[in-house]
Amino acid sequence: MRIERATHSRIHEIDFDNLPFGETFSDHMFVCDYIDGEWVDARVIPYQPLQMDPSASVLHYGQAVFEGMKAYKDEQGKVWLFRPEDNHARINKSSVRLAIPEFPKEFFMEGLNELLNLDADWIKPGIGNSLYVRPFVFANQPAVSAAASNQYQFIIICAPVKAYYSGEVNVLVSEKFSRAASGGVGYAKAAGNYAASFYPAQLANQQGYQQIIWTDANTHEYLEESGTMNVFFRINDTLITAPTTDTILDGITRKSVIQIAQDAGITVEVRPVKVSEVIEAHKNGSLKEVFGAGTAVVVSPISGIGYRGEKYSIAPVKDSYAKRLKDSIINIQYNRSEDPYGWRKEVVLVTA
Amino acid sequence: MRIERATHSRIHEIDFDNLPFGETFSDHMFVCDYIDGEWVDARVIPYQPLQMDPSASVLHYGQAVFEGMKAYKDEQGKVWLFRPEDNHARINKSSVRLAIPEFPKEFFMEGLNELLNLDADWIKPGIGNSLYVRPFVFANQPAVSAAASNQYQFIIICAPVKAYYSGEVNVLVSEKFSRAASGGVGYAKAAGNYAASFYPAQLANQQGYQQIIWTDANTHEYLEESGTMNVFFRINDTLITAPTTDTILDGITRKSVIQIAQDAGITVEVRPVKVSEVIEAHKNGSLKEVFGAGTAVVVSPISGIGYRGEKYSIAPVKDSYAKRLKDSIINIQYNRSEDPYGWRKEVVLVTA
Repeated sequence: MRIERATHSRIHEIDFDNLPFGETFSDHMFVCDYIDGEWVDARVIPYQPLQMDPSASVLHYGQAVFEGMKAYKDEQGKVWLFRPEDNHARINKSSVRLAIPEFPKEFFMEGLNELLNLDADWIKPGIGNSLYVRPFVFANQPAVSAAASNQYQFIIICAPVKAYYSGEVNVLVSEKFSRAASGGVGYAKAAGNYAASFYPAQLANQQGYQQIIWTDANTHEYLEESGTMNVFFRINDTLITAPTTDTILDGITRKSVIQIAQDAGITVEVRPVKVSEVIEAHKNGSLKEVFGAGTAVVVSPISGIGYRGEKYSIAPVKDSYAKRLKDSIINIQYNRSEDPYGWRKEVVLVTA
Repeated sequence: MRIERATHSRIHEIDFDNLPFGETFSDHMFVCDYIDGEWVDARVIPYQPLQMDPSASVLHYGQAVFEGMKAYKDEQGKVWLFRPEDNHARINKSSVRLAIPEFPKEFFMEGLNELLNLDADWIKPGIGNSLYVRPFVFANQPAVSAAASNQYQFIIICAPVKAYYSGEVNVLVSEKFSRAASGGVGYAKAAGNYAASFYPAQLANQQGYQQIIWTDANTHEYLEESGTMNVFFRINDTLITAPTTDTILDGITRKSVIQIAQDAGITVEVRPVKVSEVIEAHKNGSLKEVFGAGTAVVVSPISGIGYRGEKYSIAPVKDSYAKRLKDSIINIQYNRSEDPYGWRKEVVLVTA
């Protein structure tokens, strides 16, 4: 792999205590091109603008998918990734559905390793601090004919971040707008899925909600996912979450939460969740907690659910599952506990 | 508006008799930026690569919409557009759903006019020749937080083209994959809608079909649209097409076909079309024609429909509606007939 170091680091210009999410990027990026049927010229280069033809297919037909991961630094200065092979597998699953060529695992892992070695100083220790890692791939054939591109670029960029949400998170149940059709691309981290969610999310924001919680497009009776999170409901002492289908993202934090909860003796039901069931549980007092799970937010308690003009508030509970599960995941991620699952992967730092 | 002329025209390098669709672009492009809440710096400049930050939101979240139009040259050398105000209205309708700021009509019309004046030589006279005009707008805020961008770029590029399809067009009815959810963005020309269609289209190609014909995502019983076309069915002497809903694009060629057909005394039914009805009509001999309508294809006869493993061929008919309607539209577009509808708009050429 070709490595070109930045001649000047921007790290001293950054206020690491005041980081808006995803607006500051580290010194380097990983880039690889797909040309004539193969991935070529894998390289780590200084973070820099891309040159793109105005006809590049991604700008017209949205052929792009992405991943979200985080790199953590422990108190000894070691750097860790959390289940990175799962991100690799998922970006390829997304790519297949979007007619994008799959990306080789060795390039992905090696690219991450080289990039995080060069930009290791951008990862600050301490719970809540991390380097958000964004692999993405997009179509860049210069042609406006509506068909799969014959050229792509795979890139990884990194942004130092703190917590995603600050303050309360309230979600609004959407019965009018839908996120994904069955037979569509909802299970993929396809660029267009997110664009389609922004307008409904803005309308929800105007009503005081941070996010939409989506229902299925066919009946609007079942809860699916919310913003960039899968959603869990604790009814009495049972944790319930929707199964992953072709409309719901197979979240890596989601499946980690399920595993940790089960191993902690919590009953987990993975099954369709009716809106009516959750509202009923709120009314009869059995709805103890609702929380989202995702890479950006890790585990994020939800304080209220809006549904048909009513807001159902969820008061904090003692012995919160959300808190226990978040702590368990964070302790694994930051190398503060054993990792019986083998989820944590060290990025071995090679001193230059 | 700022105008910067290309110092050198590429027009003499182009083989206008051999043009793959949408791969060759004219000398100039229109560009306008959305910054700090307003559209600024509308300009026509030489066609050139864009500089884009790797974190530009369109590459991650697919926030982009587009339009397709054509400019035609008549035998006197006059240049014409077909219903351009409708393209303007529709790109704004698409933009609203994608949380993109609307683009002012005067900028749109003036940008088209300046651009087509500069690149008028790229429009060749003769039926089938045209300059495909592609307005598009995309999000380019450098930030990977999943929310609507605060920066956009609106661009118009132009590609000289000949016919879109050459040869037979066969379409495969999709019952597994879906194009759009109700409550989703199917009615918008959203970039992500097209990306989502490429994989199913590739699978159809492998079975010998040029395009998918989509069914509704909920029941898969009703026919929606096909590739970049709305679809019409002639059963006996009645023309039937699906109504535009939130899953079906409100095609400009579609509504022109409906108007012209009605005025020619053809009975047109705009109503949901069942797959079973079309197959039944084929079996009893009443399915006379099927054709697609769209800017790129104009009117394109469909020779066969694949459904559940069977291929239903549609033989050419005498007194074809498709041919009559196509001729009527083309004659209006190329200024070869009266235009009772006021659809044709002249681009007044100002000699430099």
